[in-house]
Amino acid sequence: MTPNRTPDPASSIDTPLVAVIGGGQLGRMLALAGIPLGLQFRFLEQSPSPPGSAVGEVISAPYDAPDAIAALIEGAAAVTYEFENVPVEAVLALPDSVPVFPPPAALRMAQDRLDEKKEFHRFGVETAPFRPVSSMAELETAVADVGLPAVLKTRRFGYDGKGQVVLRSEADLAPAWEELGSHPLILEGFVDFRRELSVIGVRGRDGSIAVYPLTENDHWEGILRRSRAPAPECGEALISEARGIVTRILEGLDYVGVLAVELFDTERGLIANELAPRVHNSGHWTQDGAVTSQFESHLRAILGLPLGSVDAVGFTTMVNLIGALPPRAALAAIPGCHIHFYGKSPRPGRKVGHVNITGPDEASVRERADRVEKLLAE
Amino acid sequence: MTPNRTPDPASSIDTPLVAVIGGGQLGRMLALAGIPLGLQFRFLEQSPSPPGSAVGEVISAPYDAPDAIAALIEGAAAVTYEFENVPVEAVLALPDSVPVFPPPAALRMAQDRLDEKKEFHRFGVETAPFRPVSSMAELETAVADVGLPAVLKTRRFGYDGKGQVVLRSEADLAPAWEELGSHPLILEGFVDFRRELSVIGVRGRDGSIAVYPLTENDHWEGILRRSRAPAPECGEALISEARGIVTRILEGLDYVGVLAVELFDTERGLIANELAPRVHNSGHWTQDGAVTSQFESHLRAILGLPLGSVDAVGFTTMVNLIGALPPRAALAAIPGCHIHFYGKSPRPGRKVGHVNITGPDEASVRERADRVEKLLAE
Repeated sequence: MTPNRTPDPASSIDTPLVAVIGGGQLGRMLALAGIPLGLQFRFLEQSPSPPGSAVGEVISAPYDAPDAIAALIEGAAAVTYEFENVPVEAVLALPDSVPVFPPPAALRMAQDRLDEKKEFHRFGVETAPFRPVSSMAELETAVADVGLPAVLKTRRFGYDGKGQVVLRSEADLAPAWEELGSHPLILEGFVDFRRELSVIGVRGRDGSIAVYPLTENDHWEGILRRSRAPAPECGEALISEARGIVTRILEGLDYVGVLAVELFDTERGLIANELAPRVHNSGHWTQDGAVTSQFESHLRAILGLPLGSVDAVGFTTMVNLIGALPPRAALAAIPGCHIHFYGKSPRPGRKVGHVNITGPDEASVRERADRVEKLLAE
Repeated sequence: MTPNRTPDPASSIDTPLVAVIGGGQLGRMLALAGIPLGLQFRFLEQSPSPPGSAVGEVISAPYDAPDAIAALIEGAAAVTYEFENVPVEAVLALPDSVPVFPPPAALRMAQDRLDEKKEFHRFGVETAPFRPVSSMAELETAVADVGLPAVLKTRRFGYDGKGQVVLRSEADLAPAWEELGSHPLILEGFVDFRRELSVIGVRGRDGSIAVYPLTENDHWEGILRRSRAPAPECGEALISEARGIVTRILEGLDYVGVLAVELFDTERGLIANELAPRVHNSGHWTQDGAVTSQFESHLRAILGLPLGSVDAVGFTTMVNLIGALPPRAALAAIPGCHIHFYGKSPRPGRKVGHVNITGPDEASVRERADRVEKLLAE
C-alpha cells in the first residue's frame, strides 16, 4: 500500500527533444519554459558547463563541428539557436529531415549590420543613415554624407556595445580606423531619439502572428540595463506602427519563432536599430509579466503548437544583473522581485542574471526597481 | 570580437544545493522554481529516471539506504522531501550539520491518521469523529460511537483514496475488516460538508508566516480533479478561521516550509481532513496564479530567505491530468491554459500532469476549464 513509484519505460513517455545551438542563459530559460510542456533539451555549446547544463544535455564542441551537429540533432523534433552568431553555413548544412527555426535568412540578416539595414529598407522599415566603410577614404566620404556625430561599427559580431566607436569630430576618424579598420565596417548616423523601445513578435508555423506589448529600454555603456513593459505613453498610432514593422519582417522572412526588433522612438516615427532572430533580453519581463513568456512562445512556434496569449499581466520592470549578483536574501526581500540567476560566474560587464519586478501599479514597480538598482550600486 | 563564452570555473559560481528525498513531479517543480534562484538539485528516488531527472541529479536507491542518504546530502545547503512517506527514522538519522525541513514531527503527524487527528486536536483544530480500530470488536464499538456512514482507513500509507472503505450499513463491517484488518486502522465519522477547501501556509526559518488565499477543491474517486483559487464565496470570518488553523499548526510544530491542510467547509465551521508537510497538489495553481509559487515559497523558507508575496494574481483553476495526457496542441489552443506535464508515462489513475487556467474573470476561467475537461473526456 506504499505509493507506486515504479520506473517508467522511457519509450512510453512523449517528450519531444528540442536541439539548441548555444547553451547560455537564453537556452537555459527556453528549457525552463519547455520542460513543463513535456519537452526535453539538448545544447551545443563550446563551454562544458554552460547555464543550460542545469536543464538539459550539453554537447561540448564548436558550433560548426559536423560530428557535434549530427549528435545535437539526432532525434530532435526541432532545432533552434539562442544566439545569432551561429555560422549560417552550419545551419544550412543541417539535413532537411529536422525543422530548423528561425530561418537561416534571419540569421544572415542579423549577422551583418549592412545586410540588416538593407533588409529593413526592403521591408519598408526606417533606419539611421548608413554607409559601408572599407577604407579610410570611404570613411571620410561616409562622414561627409551622414554627418557627425556618427558611430563606426564592425559589420559582424558586435554585441553589447563592443566593436564600435563614436565619432564626434574629424580628429576621431583616424584612431577609429586604426582600431577597427581590419574588419568590414559600417558608419551609422546618429539618431536623435526620445527613447529606445523594442517590439517582440512571434510567428507560428501556420503563419499566425502575435506581438507583445512594447518594451521601453534603458541602455548604459551599450548594455541593456532596464526594461519597462508595457512601455508607458504609447498611443494607438505608435503601437500600430511597431506592430506593422515586426509583422512585415516576420512575414517577409517567412519567419518562425520569436523575433525582437530594437527601435528608436523619434519625432519622425520609429527607426529600427537592430534585430535579434531569437528570444531577447528586452523580452525577459514576459516571464513574470505576460500570460505566455517569450520562451514558451518561441517553443510553441517552432514546434507548430498554437501560439498563446501575449497580453501583459500588470506592470513589469526588468533589471539586468551585470558583473555581480546581489545577495539572494536582499533581492528576495523586495516585494514582487522575481529572481533569475543564470548560473554564471561574475565578471565585470557580464550579464549574470536579471530580476523581473511586478506590482499593482507603475509607481510601486518603479520604487521596487530603484531598490534593486541601489543593491547593484553597493 | 566573437562573444566570450569561455568556461566558468565551477567554484566561482554560488549555486546552493537542495537535496530532495523523492524525485517525482513535486521535486521536479521545486527544481523548476529553484533553478532561476540559482539553486541546484539532487534527488533520492527509487526509480532511475523519475520526473526530477530532467532538472537535477538523481541518486537511485531506497529512501532509507544509508549510503544513498550520505550521497544525497553531501554538500547540501538544505534537505527536504517531496512526499510524506519518507521513513521518519531515515530523516532523524541525518547529521545535524545539514538543516532538514520540514521538521520530522510534521512527517510523523502526516504518516499516521490517528496521530494526525490527535495533533489537530492539540492545536485546537476540529476533525471528524474518529476511533482507533485494531480488532473486529473495536470496529463494532467504533461504529456504535461515531455512527454510519463512516470510513474505515488504514492509519498509514493511504493516498489518493487508496486503503479506505466506506461503511454504509452493518453488513459492510465484516468485508471491510477482511480487506483492511491486517493493518492498524482508524474509523472516521462522515462529515456533512458543503465543499472541500485547502489552506496552504509557509513559515520561514525566522518564524515569519504567509498564507495563500484559500483553494476550493473537487475530488472524484478520492483523487483531486480541480482546484479553484481564490476560492469563491469566502467571507472574512472563514478566511480568518482557515488562517488561524494553519498558523497554529505551523507554530505548534515549529514548522519550516510549505504546509497544506485539507479542510471541510461545514455548517459548524472548518474541519480538518488531513495535512501534507510539503508542497501540495491543491497549491499548483500558485505557479501561474500567485506572485510567488508554493514551490518557490518552500525553497525560500528552507533556505532562510525572506518569504515572497503569496497574493493571488487574478483567478486560476487547476485541472489535474489523470491517466492520460491530452494532445499538447489541443491544450495550447485554449486561452490562458498553462501546461505542466510531469514526464511520466500514462497509466490509469495516475497523475501525469496538470494545467493552470488563468483569465480575466471567473466566468472565462470556468469556460476554459470546461474545455480542458472536455478534452480529458475524449
